[in-house]
Amino acid sequence: MRKYARVSATIAHLLRKRSLQFPRLLSSSPILDHPSSSSSSSSSSSSMSSSSTHPVSLGTINEKVLKCEYAVRGEIVTLAQRLQEELLAKPGSHPFDEILYCNIGNPQSLGQQPITFFREVLALCDHPAILDRSETQGLFSTDAIKRAWEILDQIPGRATGAYSHSQGIKGLRDTIAAGIEARDGYPADPNDIFLTDGASPAVHIMMQLLIRSEGDGILCPIPQYPLYSASIALNGGTLVPYYLDESAGWGLETSELKKQLEAAKSKGINVRALVVINPGNPTGQVLAEDNQRQIVEFCKQEGLVLLADEVYQENIYVPDKKFHSFKKISRSMGYGNEDITLISFQSVSKGYYGECGKRGGYMEVTGFSPEIREQIYKVASVNLCSNISGQILASLVMSPPKVGDESFDSYSAEKDGILSSLARRAKALEDALNNLEGVECNKTEGAMYLFPRIYLPVKAVKAAEAANTSPDTFYCRRLLNATGIVVVPGSGFGQVPGTWHFRCTILPQEDKIPDIVSRLTEFHKQFMEEFRD
Amino acid sequence: MRKYARVSATIAHLLRKRSLQFPRLLSSSPILDHPSSSSSSSSSSSSMSSSSTHPVSLGTINEKVLKCEYAVRGEIVTLAQRLQEELLAKPGSHPFDEILYCNIGNPQSLGQQPITFFREVLALCDHPAILDRSETQGLFSTDAIKRAWEILDQIPGRATGAYSHSQGIKGLRDTIAAGIEARDGYPADPNDIFLTDGASPAVHIMMQLLIRSEGDGILCPIPQYPLYSASIALNGGTLVPYYLDESAGWGLETSELKKQLEAAKSKGINVRALVVINPGNPTGQVLAEDNQRQIVEFCKQEGLVLLADEVYQENIYVPDKKFHSFKKISRSMGYGNEDITLISFQSVSKGYYGECGKRGGYMEVTGFSPEIREQIYKVASVNLCSNISGQILASLVMSPPKVGDESFDSYSAEKDGILSSLARRAKALEDALNNLEGVECNKTEGAMYLFPRIYLPVKAVKAAEAANTSPDTFYCRRLLNATGIVVVPGSGFGQVPGTWHFRCTILPQEDKIPDIVSRLTEFHKQFMEEFRD
Repeated sequence: MRKYARVSATIAHLLRKRSLQFPRLLSSSPILDHPSSSSSSSSSSSSMSSSSTHPVSLGTINEKVLKCEYAVRGEIVTLAQRLQEELLAKPGSHPFDEILYCNIGNPQSLGQQPITFFREVLALCDHPAILDRSETQGLFSTDAIKRAWEILDQIPGRATGAYSHSQGIKGLRDTIAAGIEARDGYPADPNDIFLTDGASPAVHIMMQLLIRSEGDGILCPIPQYPLYSASIALNGGTLVPYYLDESAGWGLETSELKKQLEAAKSKGINVRALVVINPGNPTGQVLAEDNQRQIVEFCKQEGLVLLADEVYQENIYVPDKKFHSFKKISRSMGYGNEDITLISFQSVSKGYYGECGKRGGYMEVTGFSPEIREQIYKVASVNLCSNISGQILASLVMSPPKVGDESFDSYSAEKDGILSSLARRAKALEDALNNLEGVECNKTEGAMYLFPRIYLPVKAVKAAEAANTSPDTFYCRRLLNATGIVVVPGSGFGQVPGTWHFRCTILPQEDKIPDIVSRLTEFHKQFMEEFRD
Repeated sequence: MRKYARVSATIAHLLRKRSLQFPRLLSSSPILDHPSSSSSSSSSSSSMSSSSTHPVSLGTINEKVLKCEYAVRGEIVTLAQRLQEELLAKPGSHPFDEILYCNIGNPQSLGQQPITFFREVLALCDHPAILDRSETQGLFSTDAIKRAWEILDQIPGRATGAYSHSQGIKGLRDTIAAGIEARDGYPADPNDIFLTDGASPAVHIMMQLLIRSEGDGILCPIPQYPLYSASIALNGGTLVPYYLDESAGWGLETSELKKQLEAAKSKGINVRALVVINPGNPTGQVLAEDNQRQIVEFCKQEGLVLLADEVYQENIYVPDKKFHSFKKISRSMGYGNEDITLISFQSVSKGYYGECGKRGGYMEVTGFSPEIREQIYKVASVNLCSNISGQILASLVMSPPKVGDESFDSYSAEKDGILSSLARRAKALEDALNNLEGVECNKTEGAMYLFPRIYLPVKAVKAAEAANTSPDTFYCRRLLNATGIVVVPGSGFGQVPGTWHFRCTILPQEDKIPDIVSRLTEFHKQFMEEFRD
């Protein structure tokens, strides 16, 4: 059962001030509150003594920028960076030796190693002059050399330093489309692929296309990955929330979709699209096939564009769940381009590859008319193209080494090692969290996160109020100051008001997990002692 | 003398329909006309028979997207791609063997080779596992290996696959700041540097920050690089044009700036910033120091943000001109952060490096309050970070090999070879153009382009009208169909109405220049014969 907690005047006040930093958000929903971001900004503006005559002040910039928030790089992370500098300048100045960044899905920053084959190919494409040299045979695997040649031959003039077609190099899109076909068992068209610098710019392009004004709404899960709220805010639209059911493992009910859609319509909001994140971020759930079919049917019936965030498609940790792309699901229902408009987002930053710094990704755009495709192409072309190394890497993750290739065994060992370790880490952290007083944590079936609910004592809520912050931020800040562990308050993702959560990645290396567990446990015990009602 | 040609009813009609594809543009300026983009879009929309019930049609997408145009990848380029496919499918189907892309500053697509040292360092950073191997000594230069180690040591955990700080890796920003200091002789702060995927995203961030509505204006040169008109359109602002004086080598007069600023103010436009492109795109002029001082003074007096596009800072071909950054100029006038708000854009895509596909670049942001800097950081953080290879390359171009480094001689030879060849190509094409009947072409002092004026016969203008296109597009399309040479009509950049131009890069390899000259000359002769009044 979802808990529609009675929101006290105190908490409601806090919520208005801090908890939800969304774009325009359907505020009269019974379970969500509307931030008054402009009031807080104008107050900061008045404190700018030095810049009262400056041509650019908080009072004169684009209000959409002011309203946008991006919690995973928000205030807790800024505090963490300060603590890290203090540790460096004065070792021993804090009760911990290092900052553990569990705020963001950034595996390699925590020691995950890149897949060797991928990096070999990237290096060879960066400096093709060495491909013919004998020393190269000793340094690189045979199939990496072969693949580098194949890729170079797909690039006009073998020019890895040239702008490509604005959708990305055609040969690489062919490879990606073939990879999608192999994954789904349904055809994929290379002309439907738009290669982008990670998935984020692809999301922005779609929001930019769909949102005309505040009257346009985008259905988003709550909790959600704050890229969506940020992008909707920057484009001036309205986030129409639908709630994932925590008591049912963060399940998605179409009755909730319908309810929220109707509520939005009754307020004159033109709902244009539905965002689904599968596997879920921050919730870690993997949708059941049946559930996916209902979502497809819902979008078809209601004429909504389905924006499917599928960047965690390789991150599944439980034997009874599998990833199915929404395209596969819709095709299996007999729905083609005429029936459903569907965008799938993929990224090289996630999966077992975790190549965040390479900024590679793509969107597969299906079901639009040629005229609209042209508009999407035009917007993509204004930034000319995405980076070529990221494009190459996107093709590699969709067509890794195969049985018989020289690298296959080492590649498989690296991949399996990373994924099985992630599964163990998820389980260890989940168990540890569920062992804490007043903490409930759902299973991480997929993705890279835990999103535990914390039942905070009233005294802690009041202390947060006194500190002028939300209770979850208060908890996370205390955790950071005591342990060096960086997590993100649930309010950055959205949560049922009166409930509190935080998001914690499962990414610290395995040898660090016991220490994290004991630090977290110790902190939580003391916190509860301090604030017990 | 600028020519305020009498605009005939016919031409005015064409202009309304095709010539200027700008965002909201100050239309009552005596020398510019306002496009009616929405009317053309709604007519296309009605032709979409298949998608009348589709959730997304041209009539229901963001109008700002519809209004945005980006000519350097526009209709002529689309035609060129089709011709290229036809040539591939059926060799001999056109009166030329290959398409010569002179539409865009994309040097490596036309055969320019990358700088070896830069690529060595990138490859080593992509696959650091080989740094310790003996074979690597034989394949890579000593200083490239040394530099790769230095860069890896600047990256937390040596993780080139991790998201970085949203402004870019601090150590690389230190290197860039040091490079700026060495260039200018004035201090640069690494915290002022924001590394971006090429210069374009940086421009978008600033437009997004400054533009609140149509009431906000950005002063832009005409002709301009269409990134600016596109970005202003996408952000819903108003482009306030100021005209470069073709008869004075595309000089910039502050009297023109004042006039246009006053005209905009009188219409209630709040002008927020001034864009200057130096060296000029598409015009190729290099501003005189004195002129730059006037511009700085103007921005200071009028409280305008100075957006300085300085991506061609290494591309200067005449001995009597030198590049001076606007920051250097303003500091030399005694103006600091308190006096002037200044953004400088730089890119790895231009210069002698021409690494367009790497998508590296930065903006140096000075003169904003900490509160506004925080907002810029927030917007940057929504996309997490720019790609790390691009970040590394941006640091390399700002600190290339020095005297005494193993690579210095080969690096210098490569650099000088490229720049001196570009100078020769610019001169050869400029001379050829000036030899054509009814064509006047200014000197390319810098950047990568020629922007000749073509005096078209009335008969050609009428033929264009009959073909439902602008006269310059008509000319460029004919040129492409006859020769395979791709250039961009002046209307994509903006031009004094009734005058016609095209932009042609100086980038085809030197051995192709004679052929281009003879094809162009032959075509132009026949064109003039056909349409002579």
